[in-house]
Amino acid sequence: MPNWEDIEAARKRLRGVAHRTPVLTSRQFDEAAGATVFFKAENLQRAGAFKFRGAYNKIKAETERRPVPAVVAFSSGNHAQGVALAARLLGIRATVVMPTDAPQAKIDATRGYGAEVVLYDRATQSRDDLAEEICRERGAVLVPPFDDDLIMAGQATGAVELLEDVPDLDAIVVPVSGGGLLGGWATAARRLRPAMAIYGAEPETAADTKQSLAAGRRVEVKENPTIADGLRVTSPGKLTFPILRESLRDVLLVSDDEMIETLTFMLERMKVLVEPSGAAGAAAVRHRKADFSGKRVGVVLSGGNVDLPRLAEYIAARPSL
Amino acid sequence: MPNWEDIEAARKRLRGVAHRTPVLTSRQFDEAAGATVFFKAENLQRAGAFKFRGAYNKIKAETERRPVPAVVAFSSGNHAQGVALAARLLGIRATVVMPTDAPQAKIDATRGYGAEVVLYDRATQSRDDLAEEICRERGAVLVPPFDDDLIMAGQATGAVELLEDVPDLDAIVVPVSGGGLLGGWATAARRLRPAMAIYGAEPETAADTKQSLAAGRRVEVKENPTIADGLRVTSPGKLTFPILRESLRDVLLVSDDEMIETLTFMLERMKVLVEPSGAAGAAAVRHRKADFSGKRVGVVLSGGNVDLPRLAEYIAARPSL
Repeated sequence: MPNWEDIEAARKRLRGVAHRTPVLTSRQFDEAAGATVFFKAENLQRAGAFKFRGAYNKIKAETERRPVPAVVAFSSGNHAQGVALAARLLGIRATVVMPTDAPQAKIDATRGYGAEVVLYDRATQSRDDLAEEICRERGAVLVPPFDDDLIMAGQATGAVELLEDVPDLDAIVVPVSGGGLLGGWATAARRLRPAMAIYGAEPETAADTKQSLAAGRRVEVKENPTIADGLRVTSPGKLTFPILRESLRDVLLVSDDEMIETLTFMLERMKVLVEPSGAAGAAAVRHRKADFSGKRVGVVLSGGNVDLPRLAEYIAARPSL
Repeated sequence: MPNWEDIEAARKRLRGVAHRTPVLTSRQFDEAAGATVFFKAENLQRAGAFKFRGAYNKIKAETERRPVPAVVAFSSGNHAQGVALAARLLGIRATVVMPTDAPQAKIDATRGYGAEVVLYDRATQSRDDLAEEICRERGAVLVPPFDDDLIMAGQATGAVELLEDVPDLDAIVVPVSGGGLLGGWATAARRLRPAMAIYGAEPETAADTKQSLAAGRRVEVKENPTIADGLRVTSPGKLTFPILRESLRDVLLVSDDEMIETLTFMLERMKVLVEPSGAAGAAAVRHRKADFSGKRVGVVLSGGNVDLPRLAEYIAARPSL
């Protein structure tokens, strides 16, 4: 579990490197939600998601300990781009391991940030063996997506910024997948505002964190078809789960339709692009999955990486509230 | 022409009422443009465009002089929504006069902000007669879209904010239609940073300001088919034109395709929704309509009000750079 010193060190590393993302508000969203909502717009973060904070903090911290000739990560999503950009800024070679069926747009975007992409066949190759090989051959350091104190400390810096801008929040709602974002946010929140209620938000078809909290242990779910491709991790992390268990009031579940309705609303009225995973917290508040009446609620918009043709499909399929 | 005191008074009126919009940057945009660009995101302003600043400043200033029982405006665009929201916040009844062929979405949005919408037939009715009637009957004050010192002073507050955040700009590029936004920005810019080059940007098919500057007098063009529906005014204003003539280095012309290419780029990579008119300045810099190499350039994203089905069409029609 990261401590406060880890978070303060992360803030120093990220100063002038990560964007201090704006806090957005919308009277119309508030009317629908029955609450006063403050959106931390991490979709406007560099590389389009909060992931850059953790990746940069992790890699920079490692370089402070020893020479880091290269880094490696597995991801077909926002973590890939966060690691690629962070490594480039630090002048370190990055290799990102992706499945052969990853969307071409994600592969291109990761290469666009200067990383080498190594493809593997999910059916016949072991991702872990491949990783070990790359680490051994190149002296590369693995940058895990969530289960790491330095990663969590980096993500936590967004929470510190939000609480500086809006100190008197009653609750925060944060999308949860592996739990790196939420673990970091919960750690910062409990230090800075212990009375605040902390909620996770995840798709109802990928509710591993909800189920794990109910069971009191890490439950592994089958991969389920949700449009929220950033929230498909099948189990909370070893390091993140104890933090979530100690910190969370509840995990709120949202449907694909609720995420699409929310992200198209935010696009139309708030003029920002949020990906389905990034809209899970907002959807939970907008669709009143807990009683936030009259409360001041912080919500993380965790990412904005959507292919535009996919976005056009969401617009066409848009459900009404 | 608004003076500095007008702009300072506008800042006081708008404090805590208008959003202080963020300044966005994009390494990838910079690479394409060959310049370092700072975007003043007025698409994230209340009611989705810079128009709210001028409308609120105008109405509030009028209430300081005398009782204002009602206001009236003609607009089928962002001015309508800016006036409607400003009036509502000030507890004043607003009537917006729109042509019968205005898009239903714009009519609905204006009503959504609490204004009464009065429709008129372009073919058979005189807009001016209608206005006069409403003003006479209701004691309403007309809120003009651009040709007014209080309107320009309100718009100028965005320039002051940008120059506070990024003081060392070499140039600014601002979409121009009637010239209220650009007139306000130019006034503030000449006071705060006299050496900075000031550019307008308009569609090549609606180049009334460019032509007027060349002719040395206000030229009226025929209404032309550009997708930039906010930039279809056919002539610069009486009050705005002298300011533009004194202040502008040039007016840069952009095509519809260049605006679509730019706004889809900004959506995909910067995660913000900009309407075609709002992207005219950005398109001029991105498509290198003047030599900005190595320069630090401020660009106004003036609005973000696009119907989502229309946006889906832009995505489908997206040209490459």
